[in-house]
Amino acid sequence: MEYCFGVDIGGTTIKIGLFSQKNRFLEKWEIPTKKGKDPKPVINDIAEAIEECLKRNKLKKEEVMGIGMAAPGPVTEDGLLRGAVNIGWGDVLLGEEARKIIGISPVLIGNDARLAALGEYTFGAGKDEGSLLMITLGTGVGGGVVFDGKILTGKTGTAGEIGHMTMNPFETRSCNCGKKGCLEQYASATGMVRVAKEFLKKSNEPSTLRRLDTITSKHLWDEAKKGDKMALNIAEYVSRLLGIAIANACYIVDPEMVVIGGGVSQAGQFLLDMVQGAYAENVFPHCRDKKFALAKLRNDAGIYGGVALVLQRDELVNKHKQTMKKMLNR
Amino acid sequence: MEYCFGVDIGGTTIKIGLFSQKNRFLEKWEIPTKKGKDPKPVINDIAEAIEECLKRNKLKKEEVMGIGMAAPGPVTEDGLLRGAVNIGWGDVLLGEEARKIIGISPVLIGNDARLAALGEYTFGAGKDEGSLLMITLGTGVGGGVVFDGKILTGKTGTAGEIGHMTMNPFETRSCNCGKKGCLEQYASATGMVRVAKEFLKKSNEPSTLRRLDTITSKHLWDEAKKGDKMALNIAEYVSRLLGIAIANACYIVDPEMVVIGGGVSQAGQFLLDMVQGAYAENVFPHCRDKKFALAKLRNDAGIYGGVALVLQRDELVNKHKQTMKKMLNR
Repeated sequence: MEYCFGVDIGGTTIKIGLFSQKNRFLEKWEIPTKKGKDPKPVINDIAEAIEECLKRNKLKKEEVMGIGMAAPGPVTEDGLLRGAVNIGWGDVLLGEEARKIIGISPVLIGNDARLAALGEYTFGAGKDEGSLLMITLGTGVGGGVVFDGKILTGKTGTAGEIGHMTMNPFETRSCNCGKKGCLEQYASATGMVRVAKEFLKKSNEPSTLRRLDTITSKHLWDEAKKGDKMALNIAEYVSRLLGIAIANACYIVDPEMVVIGGGVSQAGQFLLDMVQGAYAENVFPHCRDKKFALAKLRNDAGIYGGVALVLQRDELVNKHKQTMKKMLNR
Repeated sequence: MEYCFGVDIGGTTIKIGLFSQKNRFLEKWEIPTKKGKDPKPVINDIAEAIEECLKRNKLKKEEVMGIGMAAPGPVTEDGLLRGAVNIGWGDVLLGEEARKIIGISPVLIGNDARLAALGEYTFGAGKDEGSLLMITLGTGVGGGVVFDGKILTGKTGTAGEIGHMTMNPFETRSCNCGKKGCLEQYASATGMVRVAKEFLKKSNEPSTLRRLDTITSKHLWDEAKKGDKMALNIAEYVSRLLGIAIANACYIVDPEMVVIGGGVSQAGQFLLDMVQGAYAENVFPHCRDKKFALAKLRNDAGIYGGVALVLQRDELVNKHKQTMKKMLNR
């Protein structure tokens, strides 16, 4: 019982990582995600990939202490995945199903953004902190809250969904989720591009962004860094909404650290400083010096988070066993 | 060791309650708050009031298991009150100071809105729930989050300050806290009156509100209940912002129940339904059926919360003692 797997199921690929119990990363690889209503083909693919990996490394199933699995949807405390829209799944007891098919126990599951937060908390940017809020800026905006080593899941698995906080109650356009004015509409990669196009349309001000055939969020941040005034205005606008959303979240949970991850966060310290500045302008004076950091595990945060989930459970079980032992020895 | 005190220090009065350990409320009374920079005169008054109460009830200090104290300012995990603007205090280790002067130990302290949430969780509207978010609508808007019986305090004692979430990032007027667009600017008693005046100014539509010399939040809700169209529009406007703020908070912590308290909540089920409706329109479909309730302990929530804090600590100590006992008996 010395190894464990972290699995991160995404809309297009599934990342799988093999780790030793000593938190050492051994290998990782990706397989494509079979979209559809039935999760079984996906679980079968994961089972096959894991079996091959075990064979390759001459390991037995009995040496695996568990699998931690990140899924792209809300997951309740009871391990119910409440649908994964990007893949096509409805409600599924994913851990239970996976355990039966793969033949390794336990299979613990969590929402992908929440597990990324746990990954950063345990092995990444937040490894010296007692609590953190993570926000991931990608195609959408995800998030997770970790307090005292535990993911805050909430009643319906929604805790941490900072991307769907309403930032503009007067917005007339709809978010992918159906409601209006969500942070994601401005601060996701696609949201930033939409905001950029609006800014460009509204004025005739020259901008290097106008020379591009298609604008991406990367272009936006690159041009802002180079000093293009229009790009800078757009970056400031979206950073302000991000800073306010983080401030709003901190008025509810007030963690020790805020970690920013996801593809867009590759704009680096420049983006971090802008968002942190906007945060500081929108909180009580005594909360202004909160630690902000960029995510460290990048695309691997989910598999690291899955592993953290397994190690956490093992630790709990061991603690319990040790207490029992002590009690029996007295 | 069978009794405890709950103390709720407000800007104008201090409420004190005597309880037996069996959670039974015995008596309560109020004394005026001496404003000023020095907390000592206030603590002396509380000490005197408690001594008189003990004498009256023929109780000894040794029979008091502790005092739980609510203060009108942020309180950190370490028991540091980070100022109480309404009274005039700066940072003070209130529990420590009070313990020395009163001569009873422990004196545990918490923010007043957070302790009200703990009071409702332990003895009031939330006593059958595992977690709750409470929001208090009074002169200001306060709040608190309780998870698994524990107040979420946060790094700087700010967790739960839902009243200062930015609801309108385009607001030009400032909140009392200095920043712009806080929920409190629209949803506190004074905020609602300000919004009402603006609505009345902007149109010539007839309204029973126009007949009043001064409008209070109570008038607003009373007239809305009677069917005055303008009052109803105003009530819907502020309820919508309240519902969105609660939805935003639930996207971070997702508790089992939302409790609405404070003076304005005396508008009752009418207000609750309106806020819950606005909440449901602004969350994911699977979170829409969250439980909403009106606070039950009214003005006494703070002293009940103080008592809950003392009982909680006692329970912890006893649990520890019992574990030790069991270990030694084996």
